[in-house]
Amino acid sequence: MTQGTIHGVGLGPGAQDLMSVRADRLIREARHIAYFRKKGKSGHARRTVEGMLRHDVVEYPMEYPVTTEIPLTDPRYNDLLSSFYAGCTAHLDGLSASGEDVVVLCEGDPFFYGSFMHLHSRLAAPVSIVPGITGMSGAWTASGAPISWGDDVMTVLMATLPEEELVRRIHDTNALVVMKIGRNLPKLRRAVEAAGKQDCAWLVEYATMADQRITPLAEAAGVTAYFSILLIHGQGRRP
Amino acid sequence: MTQGTIHGVGLGPGAQDLMSVRADRLIREARHIAYFRKKGKSGHARRTVEGMLRHDVVEYPMEYPVTTEIPLTDPRYNDLLSSFYAGCTAHLDGLSASGEDVVVLCEGDPFFYGSFMHLHSRLAAPVSIVPGITGMSGAWTASGAPISWGDDVMTVLMATLPEEELVRRIHDTNALVVMKIGRNLPKLRRAVEAAGKQDCAWLVEYATMADQRITPLAEAAGVTAYFSILLIHGQGRRP
Repeated sequence: MTQGTIHGVGLGPGAQDLMSVRADRLIREARHIAYFRKKGKSGHARRTVEGMLRHDVVEYPMEYPVTTEIPLTDPRYNDLLSSFYAGCTAHLDGLSASGEDVVVLCEGDPFFYGSFMHLHSRLAAPVSIVPGITGMSGAWTASGAPISWGDDVMTVLMATLPEEELVRRIHDTNALVVMKIGRNLPKLRRAVEAAGKQDCAWLVEYATMADQRITPLAEAAGVTAYFSILLIHGQGRRP
Repeated sequence: MTQGTIHGVGLGPGAQDLMSVRADRLIREARHIAYFRKKGKSGHARRTVEGMLRHDVVEYPMEYPVTTEIPLTDPRYNDLLSSFYAGCTAHLDGLSASGEDVVVLCEGDPFFYGSFMHLHSRLAAPVSIVPGITGMSGAWTASGAPISWGDDVMTVLMATLPEEELVRRIHDTNALVVMKIGRNLPKLRRAVEAAGKQDCAWLVEYATMADQRITPLAEAAGVTAYFSILLIHGQGRRP
């Protein structure tokens, strides 16, 4: 029997018609789909494909055993996540071994800070990746201005980094994207101020989705949505 | 009469089915399309949409008066490009004023180091942007490995930067993307070596296209194709 392929398929930033034509076709034809979600939630990836699935599709929701309840530094976090990914991988490898293809729904682009990467590095089955429009592309499109020009240096940072490192790197770049903001917003705001860039920083929430919102960082409230991205636009060379 | 809209539409990295469903629809329905190309060439953006266009489509190729014949530092370069963009803008604004929509074909993502940005900043007409999968997403997908994990810092550099700045920034990042390589390849190779990262740098040419090629930087030939991107993959936290 031929092994099935596990397709890691980028869904793009959120709007259904911003997934690629290839992703659209694979999702509509899929007999098996899998996706990550928080326990007790419907899951953003799954919501994005609502109305696109075969009537006989078999769904495999992969529910995180923990998200932010345990700090990243706690060794239990690593053990729990590692076992979780191993279990998901075993299930997907089993489907592949029985000849079934599976489409794994991936928010944004699968190979850019994506959860699918933790399965990809463990899977024995053949894997195929469909890139997607990143959440950050969705964010700068929503902002109405180009992110980078000419020779601009662009830096992508996670707000989980230490404050002093954020300050140094925000100071030392032309264009900036910051992700994983959530509870780190107060720290991030202090870092942007310390780098002297508070007047050109924008917070984009739910880019390309129905509840898209763009706020100057200075006016942003305490805790942001999961889909929030901070932008500072480059101002490089332009004829 | 209602003004027409100028759509800046991201085509993605090159494969036709990697454009978004929204882009695909706009391009197939378009009565007017416009695209940049080098004089005497068919143009990569135009080739990407081959077979998708209406039989009665009106095409407006925008031919660069100069690409690499005059150095960027020559004031004539700036003047020539500026007049060129102004001319293109006048034509597109004219179409909009007469009620026509126009789809401008943009390689990759329109707001990420894109040529369309030089029209966007000049157009009086209503503009709408469709983001696209970036060339760099195409490149790391082609490389078969994720570009960034956990708290990795990702830096995007243009190979046109001074050598010492390239060295400093290549040294100071986890994940790296370098674009605009072409004639700058020897300089870039020296900079990667000086930063001590020559053994983990990959050159990806024509990602997602028929002639896709991935080469360790150490083995790359003298001058690379226009669609070449250098990658160093981040190795960040993973449970």
